[in-house]
Amino acid sequence: MVRINVIQKLVYPTPSKIILLLIDGLGDIPSEEGGKTPLEAASIPNMDELTKKGICGLMDPISTGITPGSGPSHLALFGYDPFKYDIGRGVLEALGIGLGMTKKDVATRANFATINEEGIITDRRAGRISSEKCRELCELLQARIKSIDDVEIVIKPSKEHRFVVLFRGEGLSDRISDTDPQKDGHPPKEPKSLHTEAKKTEKIVTEFTKRSAELLKSHHPSNFVLLRGFAKYPDIPYMNKLFKIRPAAIATYPMYKGLARLVGMEIIECGETHKEEIKSLKENYPKYDFFYVHIKETDKAGEDGNFSSKTEVLEEVDRYIPEILKLKPECFVITGDHSTPCKLKSHSWHPNPLILYSQYCGADGVEKFCERECVKGGLGRLDATELMPLMLANALKLKKYGA
Amino acid sequence: MVRINVIQKLVYPTPSKIILLLIDGLGDIPSEEGGKTPLEAASIPNMDELTKKGICGLMDPISTGITPGSGPSHLALFGYDPFKYDIGRGVLEALGIGLGMTKKDVATRANFATINEEGIITDRRAGRISSEKCRELCELLQARIKSIDDVEIVIKPSKEHRFVVLFRGEGLSDRISDTDPQKDGHPPKEPKSLHTEAKKTEKIVTEFTKRSAELLKSHHPSNFVLLRGFAKYPDIPYMNKLFKIRPAAIATYPMYKGLARLVGMEIIECGETHKEEIKSLKENYPKYDFFYVHIKETDKAGEDGNFSSKTEVLEEVDRYIPEILKLKPECFVITGDHSTPCKLKSHSWHPNPLILYSQYCGADGVEKFCERECVKGGLGRLDATELMPLMLANALKLKKYGA
Repeated sequence: MVRINVIQKLVYPTPSKIILLLIDGLGDIPSEEGGKTPLEAASIPNMDELTKKGICGLMDPISTGITPGSGPSHLALFGYDPFKYDIGRGVLEALGIGLGMTKKDVATRANFATINEEGIITDRRAGRISSEKCRELCELLQARIKSIDDVEIVIKPSKEHRFVVLFRGEGLSDRISDTDPQKDGHPPKEPKSLHTEAKKTEKIVTEFTKRSAELLKSHHPSNFVLLRGFAKYPDIPYMNKLFKIRPAAIATYPMYKGLARLVGMEIIECGETHKEEIKSLKENYPKYDFFYVHIKETDKAGEDGNFSSKTEVLEEVDRYIPEILKLKPECFVITGDHSTPCKLKSHSWHPNPLILYSQYCGADGVEKFCERECVKGGLGRLDATELMPLMLANALKLKKYGA
Repeated sequence: MVRINVIQKLVYPTPSKIILLLIDGLGDIPSEEGGKTPLEAASIPNMDELTKKGICGLMDPISTGITPGSGPSHLALFGYDPFKYDIGRGVLEALGIGLGMTKKDVATRANFATINEEGIITDRRAGRISSEKCRELCELLQARIKSIDDVEIVIKPSKEHRFVVLFRGEGLSDRISDTDPQKDGHPPKEPKSLHTEAKKTEKIVTEFTKRSAELLKSHHPSNFVLLRGFAKYPDIPYMNKLFKIRPAAIATYPMYKGLARLVGMEIIECGETHKEEIKSLKENYPKYDFFYVHIKETDKAGEDGNFSSKTEVLEEVDRYIPEILKLKPECFVITGDHSTPCKLKSHSWHPNPLILYSQYCGADGVEKFCERECVKGGLGRLDATELMPLMLANALKLKKYGA
């Protein structure tokens, strides 16, 4: 168990630099018995070469058997106890569409839904309306509901039937129950305060639901709004304070930028492609000493069950490795935030292969970067929360503990 | 996480014996990419033979990434939570020069330093005066400052500019700030009580600093005393009580004897060499059932960055293994308290290779005692605090847990 308060006392600022290349959904399992994983099938000579110089291991994102969402798995990688710091669904959705939040906000994931004359939800997703329709309806709602009492309302579309509602004002709480019954054939639930501090929020949310239903009356099948995952912006200590580093994030998707911003990273704008991300890394290399570089497409390929696409992305990323190594980071790590096996088409609990390379990393016998070989690595099996102390140690940023 | 209170309930006394051969600073990394570690380079046929019969692993002294001082790393090996029991700097220094402490004492590490007429420290180490000069000045101070109020003052030299001051009396506290500013070019700090219970100590330390400065006035460059790391003797439960064993320590350096005394071991006097240590072990074998045998010279070689010297010490130690095995201990362990890689010339965070041999240890495929092979061992990756329960189990000293 990593004690962040101990690490905090040992860390001191140095010019040494750390690059964490995070390949989203990296880990995998063979799609058929006796088969290979995408890492095993891919031609990744640069990563393989690095395993010979570096030290390897298998890393559990949260703990054995637990499949993480992107929120907790990223927090753990950034050195935070994912059981202590909770990123609510509403916040993650807001981060995912690039919606800036303040500490006064309560965010909630919203669905356009279909309700019948008896007040029963017949389709929680309103027939998966188009993203275009969603945007139109969000604009309609936003134009007519700018505030309720002293609470500002911010409405932003996501994809298809999904959108986000932010309640912004003093004295709001996220201890409110969902209005989404999570099943068709039921009436929407009343938003209930789960704590006396949430009474005001309950009133505002009740009023929002009522007003939005009135505005949507003539917009069948999108004639109702369901809300779930009320969440305040979590109060997480910043990485620069905890680890005395200047951290920067290079990511193409809003959610990962948002997660990085949560822990106080600076967000480097970097375009849309992996190639542009690496270019950005090189350009900004002198300005920071910790770089989180996020590769999204592996996870997407895994979610689609597209084995060959995952393999191709890995091969593309492999071609960037020499460019990254030319920067001569004092510590360079390649790993994933969680596995996304093509066979499961979803996040999973499987540990991620990991290479750590530094001048002081030590040696093991691993010669190929994949799940089956990394299990024999010198780092053994580790928890994601152990990575941050390990990277700091390898960059010689940690003092001795005790006399 | 080991639960010492659970182990304490399960343990029962038996005649079986445990020998822990502690090779200080054992673990290492290749000094060059692609190179060997000292254990890999050394010819250690007896240890290699033992890996075939025993079971191996890699052991983290404290937790991932943390480089331990000798205090916490030894406590962990002896089965204590190193985050719970803190050995302050002053105490470790006192132990290091063989200065016996009582529970009434506050120990502090002292430096002879140079102060100019404006009251600015110009050299925190007084030009690294000779150990001989240090002894002389300590004698001078001790002769003139025997006590302050009802507090006895004990002054003992260490090496060069270093010495130890013990404040011995009722109602003293170690919650006092350092007078050493840790940088040249600053005035010495006032000793400040960090808690109301330390008011008396603050007064005594202030007076000591004043009196010693007067006595040293004409002894430029050693004309001031800086104090840091005020620490009381920690209250640690003894091993015989916790583990129902009769533990003994065989070590040549005062600090390790002191650490062993802290946890209630008996100290066997054993001379100066490793050879004498092994002789002592054999002579005293019938009298105890737990032996901590400390080998210092590996750590020293690592601190000096002397790869071939570290290799030679390992080869020397290897030659004693058959003699130790002839004693037929029920459980025999070889490991280190922390790594001291020659490349780093200091303690490090790297895990230590470990062999455990007993009649009931089980088997793994490891055939060579080194970092790279032990990672494949049957014990996997373990925390130092897990070693004590594991040794007790292998010596059949632990009852079943639960019905």
